[in-house]
Amino acid sequence: MIADLRALEPPQLESFTNSLVEQVVAAVTDKIPHLESSLAVAELTVALHYVLNTPEDVLVWDVGHQGYIHKALTGRMEELVNMRKPGGLSGFLKRDESPYDFFGAGHASTSISALAGVCLADQVSGKSRQRVAVIGDGSLTGGQSFEALNHLGSLGADALVIINDNEGSIDATIGALHHQQSYGTYVQSLGWQYTFLEQGNDVRALVEALQHVLAQPGPQTLHIKTKRPDLSPPKSYKPGTTFQWWAAETMGVVLEKNLDIQLLSPAMFAGSGFGPLRELYPNRLIDTGINEAHTVSAAAGIVAAGGKAWVHIYSTFLQRAFDQLIHDVALQHLPV
Amino acid sequence: MIADLRALEPPQLESFTNSLVEQVVAAVTDKIPHLESSLAVAELTVALHYVLNTPEDVLVWDVGHQGYIHKALTGRMEELVNMRKPGGLSGFLKRDESPYDFFGAGHASTSISALAGVCLADQVSGKSRQRVAVIGDGSLTGGQSFEALNHLGSLGADALVIINDNEGSIDATIGALHHQQSYGTYVQSLGWQYTFLEQGNDVRALVEALQHVLAQPGPQTLHIKTKRPDLSPPKSYKPGTTFQWWAAETMGVVLEKNLDIQLLSPAMFAGSGFGPLRELYPNRLIDTGINEAHTVSAAAGIVAAGGKAWVHIYSTFLQRAFDQLIHDVALQHLPV
Repeated sequence: MIADLRALEPPQLESFTNSLVEQVVAAVTDKIPHLESSLAVAELTVALHYVLNTPEDVLVWDVGHQGYIHKALTGRMEELVNMRKPGGLSGFLKRDESPYDFFGAGHASTSISALAGVCLADQVSGKSRQRVAVIGDGSLTGGQSFEALNHLGSLGADALVIINDNEGSIDATIGALHHQQSYGTYVQSLGWQYTFLEQGNDVRALVEALQHVLAQPGPQTLHIKTKRPDLSPPKSYKPGTTFQWWAAETMGVVLEKNLDIQLLSPAMFAGSGFGPLRELYPNRLIDTGINEAHTVSAAAGIVAAGGKAWVHIYSTFLQRAFDQLIHDVALQHLPV
Repeated sequence: MIADLRALEPPQLESFTNSLVEQVVAAVTDKIPHLESSLAVAELTVALHYVLNTPEDVLVWDVGHQGYIHKALTGRMEELVNMRKPGGLSGFLKRDESPYDFFGAGHASTSISALAGVCLADQVSGKSRQRVAVIGDGSLTGGQSFEALNHLGSLGADALVIINDNEGSIDATIGALHHQQSYGTYVQSLGWQYTFLEQGNDVRALVEALQHVLAQPGPQTLHIKTKRPDLSPPKSYKPGTTFQWWAAETMGVVLEKNLDIQLLSPAMFAGSGFGPLRELYPNRLIDTGINEAHTVSAAAGIVAAGGKAWVHIYSTFLQRAFDQLIHDVALQHLPV
C-alpha cells in the first residue's frame, strides 16, 4: 500500500486519503477518542509516508493512539478489526508489530527524546536519513518534551518535530503555551526553527510544507492546526456498574463534605468519569496538563501552604510521579 | 538575626552580607561544590529575607544546596559546623528543621511546582502574601520546571520565579536555553513577565529589583547573573579507594573496547569521577542536562536507531526515570 501511495501524483492524494479514512472508520468501532485523534492526522500521515522513505527514514509518533491510519497504511488494514483484542493488533505503536513502528508509545511526551537518540546514534554511524517526530499539543505539556527540545535544540542535528495542534487531547489542553498559542517563540527560545501551516488537514499543502522544512538544515519545527472529527460520543458508563462511576460518586461526597479540598489531575478527569464533578466545582477540580511529576509536587505545595489536596492519576501513569511521591510528599510528611 | 537584618538601612546590607559569608565559610569546610552554589546566592538570600516577610511570605529554594546562607540567616549559624553529621543539620532544606524551610528539596526542578501549589491553596483560602521560588539555570533544564511554568503561567496568580544563572550547576549547564541565553523569550512564551538584572551579586541592586518585580501583578520572573566563587577544589579521590574510581576505571575499559558505545548521563559525570573519560571521549560521553526521563528515552532511541547506549545515573535519582525504564526500554526490548 505504501508503494501504491508513492506512485501517486499529488492531485490524487486527497481521494486516496478519503478512501483510507473510510476503511479505517469502518474497521475501528470502539475507542472513539483515540480514533478521533488518528483521523485528525489522516492527511498528515499520508503526506509523511509520501514524502519520507519510511522505514529507512525515521518517523516517531508521540502517543500511539495517533497511529491507526499509520497502521492501515503500513500493511495492517485487514488486521484493524482485531485491534485491542487477544492476538490482535496493539492499540498503540509497537516495535514488534512492524518495522514502520520505529518506537512504541503509550504514554505521552517521549517522542522527541527518541528522536534525539536517533540523531546521537547517526552522528556515530554517519548515517544520513530524515528524522521526524510528531507530537500533539497535549503531549507537549509534558516536561520530557521540553527536556528533549532543549537538549536536541543545542546539538544542531537535522531533525524535524511536527507539533500537531488539534485544539485539545482527550481532555482539553491546558497551559500558557496553548492559551497564548506561543509555540513559535517557545521553540525558537530552545534553538529550533519554526514554520506554521494553518491547513493541517490539506494533504497537498502538507506535502509542500514537509518538502520545504525537510530541505532545511538543523532542528526544525512545523506547527500545524488540525481538526478532530466529532464522532459519536463514547458509550456513557452505566451508573453503578464501573469503577469509574464508583470513584466519581465517592469523590463527589468527599468534595461536598470538605469544602477546602482541591482535586488535581494530569489530564485524566474526563477519562475517569469526573466530567460532571468538574462542572459542579470548576475551581476545585484542577486539570494540570499531562505532567504527573508537576501535579504531585503542586499538591504537596498546596498542603505545605495549609490547604488540602487530593491527586487523581491512573495507576499506569503513576510511575511518572514516583519520585515526587517519595521526595516531595513522603519525605516531607505532607498528607497529600 | 532576621530581625537584625530587617532593622538595617540599605547601605548597611553589603557589610552585613560580607560578615555573614565569612562566618558560613568558616563553619562549612566540606561539600565545596554545594558551598560555592550557596555563596553565589549570598547577596540574593540577604536581599530576599530583607524584602520579604518570611516565614509568612513563602520562599521556596530549588535544590537545597543553595540554602547554607539561608540557614545561617534563619537562626542556624551555630549549628552549621554540624551540618551533614549525625544529629546535625541537613545539607538541604528540611521542613522539620525550621518554619523558614517552607519546602524541602534535594532533587532539582521541583520549586515552581510547589509555588503553583501555594498559589492554588491561597486562591481557596483567600490568603494574600508574597510567593517566591529561586531556581538555578541547571535545575531549569529539568522538565518539571517547564510543566510548572506552563501551568502556573496560565493561572494569572501573583508569583515570582527568580532564575539564578551562575553559569553552571555542579556540572556545566547544557541545552539551547543556556547556550542562547534565551530565558526571556522562553518564559514569555509561557505567560510570564521577564526582568533581567546583570548584577546578581550586588545586594542593593537586588533589593531594588525585588521590590520592583514584587509590586507587579501576575506571574513574574527575575533573571539574575551570579558568580560562583572558586573555592579550593574538592579532595580528589585516591585511585583504587572509592566506588567512583572503580566505576570510571571500568567504564574506561568498556569505552576503549567498544568504539560504538555512547554514554549518557543527566549532569552526573563530574560528581561520578568521569571527568577524565569525558576529556578522552568528548563525542561519546554526552551530558544531557538535569533530565533523567529524557536521558533514558534518548538512550532507547539510540539503540532503536542501531547504536549502543549506556546510561549512568546515581541510584537516588533513578526513580525520576523509572517510567522511562519500563515504557521506553523494557517494554520495547531495547538493550540500553
